[in-house]
Amino acid sequence: MRATTIHAAGDVRIEEVPDPVLSTGRDAIVRVVAACVCGSDLWSYRGVRDPEPGSRIGHEFVGVVEAIGDDVENVAVGDFVIAPFYDCDMTCANCRNGVSTSCLEHSWWGSRDHFGDFADGAQGEFVRVPHADGTLVKTPEYPADDLIPHLLTLSDVFGTGHHAALSGGVGPGSTVVVIGDGAVGLCAVLAAKRLGAERIVLMSRHESRQALGREFGATDVIAERGEEGIAAAKALFDDIGPDAVLECVGTPESMDQAIATVRPGGTVGFVGVPAEGNSVPVGSLFGRNVALRGGVAPVRNYIEELLPDVWNGTVEPGRVFDLTLPLAEVAEAYAAMDERRAIKVLLKP
Amino acid sequence: MRATTIHAAGDVRIEEVPDPVLSTGRDAIVRVVAACVCGSDLWSYRGVRDPEPGSRIGHEFVGVVEAIGDDVENVAVGDFVIAPFYDCDMTCANCRNGVSTSCLEHSWWGSRDHFGDFADGAQGEFVRVPHADGTLVKTPEYPADDLIPHLLTLSDVFGTGHHAALSGGVGPGSTVVVIGDGAVGLCAVLAAKRLGAERIVLMSRHESRQALGREFGATDVIAERGEEGIAAAKALFDDIGPDAVLECVGTPESMDQAIATVRPGGTVGFVGVPAEGNSVPVGSLFGRNVALRGGVAPVRNYIEELLPDVWNGTVEPGRVFDLTLPLAEVAEAYAAMDERRAIKVLLKP
Repeated sequence: MRATTIHAAGDVRIEEVPDPVLSTGRDAIVRVVAACVCGSDLWSYRGVRDPEPGSRIGHEFVGVVEAIGDDVENVAVGDFVIAPFYDCDMTCANCRNGVSTSCLEHSWWGSRDHFGDFADGAQGEFVRVPHADGTLVKTPEYPADDLIPHLLTLSDVFGTGHHAALSGGVGPGSTVVVIGDGAVGLCAVLAAKRLGAERIVLMSRHESRQALGREFGATDVIAERGEEGIAAAKALFDDIGPDAVLECVGTPESMDQAIATVRPGGTVGFVGVPAEGNSVPVGSLFGRNVALRGGVAPVRNYIEELLPDVWNGTVEPGRVFDLTLPLAEVAEAYAAMDERRAIKVLLKP
Repeated sequence: MRATTIHAAGDVRIEEVPDPVLSTGRDAIVRVVAACVCGSDLWSYRGVRDPEPGSRIGHEFVGVVEAIGDDVENVAVGDFVIAPFYDCDMTCANCRNGVSTSCLEHSWWGSRDHFGDFADGAQGEFVRVPHADGTLVKTPEYPADDLIPHLLTLSDVFGTGHHAALSGGVGPGSTVVVIGDGAVGLCAVLAAKRLGAERIVLMSRHESRQALGREFGATDVIAERGEEGIAAAKALFDDIGPDAVLECVGTPESMDQAIATVRPGGTVGFVGVPAEGNSVPVGSLFGRNVALRGGVAPVRNYIEELLPDVWNGTVEPGRVFDLTLPLAEVAEAYAAMDERRAIKVLLKP
């Protein structure tokens, strides 16, 4: 099959790789219908993290089950399925505690598996799913084409935005500031709105992202950054600050900004993948009772809750995709994301 | 009046200072019936923080209202009252949000007030309370002598232990590890038990503290420290870890231990005053979705909730006092705490 590989910073290719085969009774093989490029894929692409040459890449996909192992019970050949950005069994203690990203049998798409082989990445034609019954969620029926981008966001960005909002304790009447106007930040706006937030402020200086943020539920947009941005955000909340700040970037600056913006006793819900060496002085939390809650989003635990609203069109998180390319043009997809010409690129194998 | 002053590390004295007087209509003057020495007082005593020479010290007291300003409505002369370890108005947005330690008119006992004068410390004969209606809580009637130590813990340590447990999300059925066997750590055990925790592990290597911890509700005690302590604690919870770790020390080592011990998706409730330079790598939280919640405890917000159980004897947090001295012997009180000859010393003016 054809799949995307990364060889060095800036060097992603479509290559011929071995077709996946069922290796245990719990496996499924899924034919990818849609995948996409994630902001975190850019870390390898930009050389912030060194990719292992030739490794597979991509971790968000929806598709159709092509084959299943003998022990698979929850999905059948022909089902349309959503996969989270990782594999998990959904039966271990951590999965049952709602933290399937810490599954005791967890693995990442594209990473080395227990045998030292590369697991399939999502930016390819097929993916072997090691724990099909845990990982995959089938849709009520085969979706219409225009629903597919929205379903694909349940694989990562909408679930991650939802995790930011839940981690920030967002609920009916909450006041919220969102830092980060990428796909995750925009989905965090949508998730906060869905959970009943009363006022949602998006920090953004990009017109198209501001516009989508407003359509997703942002009541205010602030273009200022740094100290000015903090002051402008607090000013909207009597200089005390909002109940929650959703940190969807991951840099030391954005975390500092989040902590400085939130009100005493409030919560920073953080989902931005932390930059190397990013640390938080405990004293900056202690005196004002600022809580930090978040991390790599256990989106598998959220799919059943979020799917109905996506399926019936109540929310349209797939609007974060502003460019669709064939898989063969994956290099251009990365370049468009890297240069911020696109918010998020959908890939069709 | 006589009051405790601190002049340098190791140098606390009883000195004659001006009697407090009503300075605004919202003031009350309280005659101190019992005060005590806090672990955080030792920071100045040990020179970890430089005390301002001649400043007042002590921040926990109960007493009798001696005089009130014209605008005071909630307490009357002769009332027995509990004061939190700070002054607050209980009407501002932060107080109403449950974070009275961030009161917009907040001040600390013993610190410089808005006029640059030293506020009264609690280790003295009288205290001027700037926001009497907000700060003071009167008891149902004048308490029996043996109830006074228990009431005094509502001024700080029992409320702070309760804050650790609440911050850690402790509730019915929770599994909890408590780091720190000082008065606050022991009160955190008691608070976790009161909130319905199912299993409570106290990290302690001091026999008398272990014994009191068990009486307060600890189901297990672990004497090991460092990596061995982490492994021993996790082993009690299927090597996954407890739902909550209550960090009641404040050193970088204890915070690292707390984060390493808690289960994925769990919460570190922290109330240990953070040591200078104590910082947390965001990566240590992100991958396992470990939340940090806590800070300087807004104990004033908890007094009404905790008082009934203290008043009727359901809980006996005052058992943390294992030494009582007259105020005149305050220097010996500090030495006994510093040398860990006493868990906590009660002072009688």
